Amino acid sequence: MSGMIALDWGTTSLRAYWLEAGSIRESRAHPWGVRQLPEGGFNGALADITAGWPRLPRLACGMVGSRQGWREVPYLDLPATMTQLGRSLHSVRADDGLDVHIVCGLRNPRDPDVMRGEETQLMGALARWPLLAAQSTWILPGTHSKWVSVRDGAVTDFCTLMTGELFALLQQHSILAVNVPGVEADPDAFARGVIAARDSGAAGALSRLFCARALMLDNALAPTGVPHYLSGLLIGEELRSALATRRFCHKTPIQLIGDAALCARYRSAAAHFDLELAEPVIDAAAYGLWQIACHAQWVDAGSSDVFMGTPAC
Amino acid sequence: MSGMIALDWGTTSLRAYWLEAGSIRESRAHPWGVRQLPEGGFNGALADITAGWPRLPRLACGMVGSRQGWREVPYLDLPATMTQLGRSLHSVRADDGLDVHIVCGLRNPRDPDVMRGEETQLMGALARWPLLAAQSTWILPGTHSKWVSVRDGAVTDFCTLMTGELFALLQQHSILAVNVPGVEADPDAFARGVIAARDSGAAGALSRLFCARALMLDNALAPTGVPHYLSGLLIGEELRSALATRRFCHKTPIQLIGDAALCARYRSAAAHFDLELAEPVIDAAAYGLWQIACHAQWVDAGSSDVFMGTPAC
Repeated sequence: MSGMIALDWGTTSLRAYWLEAGSIRESRAHPWGVRQLPEGGFNGALADITAGWPRLPRLACGMVGSRQGWREVPYLDLPATMTQLGRSLHSVRADDGLDVHIVCGLRNPRDPDVMRGEETQLMGALARWPLLAAQSTWILPGTHSKWVSVRDGAVTDFCTLMTGELFALLQQHSILAVNVPGVEADPDAFARGVIAARDSGAAGALSRLFCARALMLDNALAPTGVPHYLSGLLIGEELRSALATRRFCHKTPIQLIGDAALCARYRSAAAHFDLELAEPVIDAAAYGLWQIACHAQWVDAGSSDVFMGTPAC
Repeated sequence: MSGMIALDWGTTSLRAYWLEAGSIRESRAHPWGVRQLPEGGFNGALADITAGWPRLPRLACGMVGSRQGWREVPYLDLPATMTQLGRSLHSVRADDGLDVHIVCGLRNPRDPDVMRGEETQLMGALARWPLLAAQSTWILPGTHSKWVSVRDGAVTDFCTLMTGELFALLQQHSILAVNVPGVEADPDAFARGVIAARDSGAAGALSRLFCARALMLDNALAPTGVPHYLSGLLIGEELRSALATRRFCHKTPIQLIGDAALCARYRSAAAHFDLELAEPVIDAAAYGLWQIACHAQWVDAGSSDVFMGTPAC
């Protein structure tokens, strides 16, 4: 078998990939995260998003495996390797008679912290850049941004910063929400936010949040600039805070995984911290699901194309 | 004239006081903040809350003087004294033919930051404890908590921490919102949050926010404890952050103004920082409005009762 269906099923979105020989043959996306399923629930969403595709092994990652998901699957404790992830799949039988297999999340018992989905993206990225398995630091920006340490092929540490969720809450519901037509980008307002966070030092950027309002009242920040200032402040705070923990090595470029536009904001913010972030890896979840399927020996590792490399198993 | 109507008119609530000789003769409260006015708007709210009271001079403070309020009145720049506040009143004519006078807010040009209403509470508290006018630090907990420095009778510095608003946002709209019947108090969960914030050091407590979810998934924190943990984490972060700025003297007890239950939480949190907070001053806005009216010579300062003391003017 050289094909499979990969499902990246998060809180707010569902992405499906039809993979052949480790490459994306076709992909589809809907806003059908586990919190906003269409009529028909999990089965309906799956049938719709894979309509017309062949009946192939299906592997999913993300919040679909959470308590609010299709089936709750346990977390694997750190340190965790790809081989362990491949051996720890759980399954749920769909209405069409075929199983959906679900990848475990990871748990950091030291801190404590959890992730679901990011472990799979990381495996996809590591398969693409195998030299980074020895030692690397990763940022996966998003609703709940993850900072991750990889050593000797295993995830050894990670922490979560709720940057994206805080931004959305402040934007939609707080006194800092501005009801003005947005501008596509405002690099100056963004940079001011980043610098305010960086220079907040040990006090932290929460102490600079209300400044957005004061600056606006002073006409020192245009209302259209407020969301960009806030974005800069919160991304800057993520960088400031994660660096302050001294948990994550950043001697070499830190690797990024995620949406290209969001990753571009992180790279721009990082420049104010003299920090180098690499170009982001895109569609990492699809490649990670392929790798895990290889380790589970559902798909033929030898069939992976050159781009994906040959899995180490 | 020895009587007046004092209006403490904020974003979410309106409190009216009928004052005689500097004492509260009667008080009323409604959730008619400037963001949630009843039918009839500002005039309707005023007529309703003062129904049956005599026609007396009326003085208001708070968000009623903001851009979203009844009339936008300017900010006074720091340093600012009671005398300056008394000289800077603005007025709006109500439908009943009498004016409502509105106290200016304060602006910190150095930082920048703004307040509306807290300056009046502070004046009320300073009138009660005149020895504190020489040098003192104040916390006014709330939606937008203020930390304030007073020197030689003037407000010389302040900053805003959005502690209360962040707590409400996270409680109502975030992944940390728990849909379980609350328990009245959970001192252990609260203390765990405070200690997590204190021990977050320079990284700050935003890096510990997601832990609330991880702890709950681990069954190490009961769902009913999550709101209390979050409250402790955010109040702890306010204390950690404000102390880290080194802007506010805390050699002597820090003074509190505000709601008794909320102030009790701050005192309990402060104990984990070896920080002493004084007993809170209650109804400070009413007394502050009385003091400002004395300085504006609308009411007879000599008529103030012993509790209120004689204004320094």
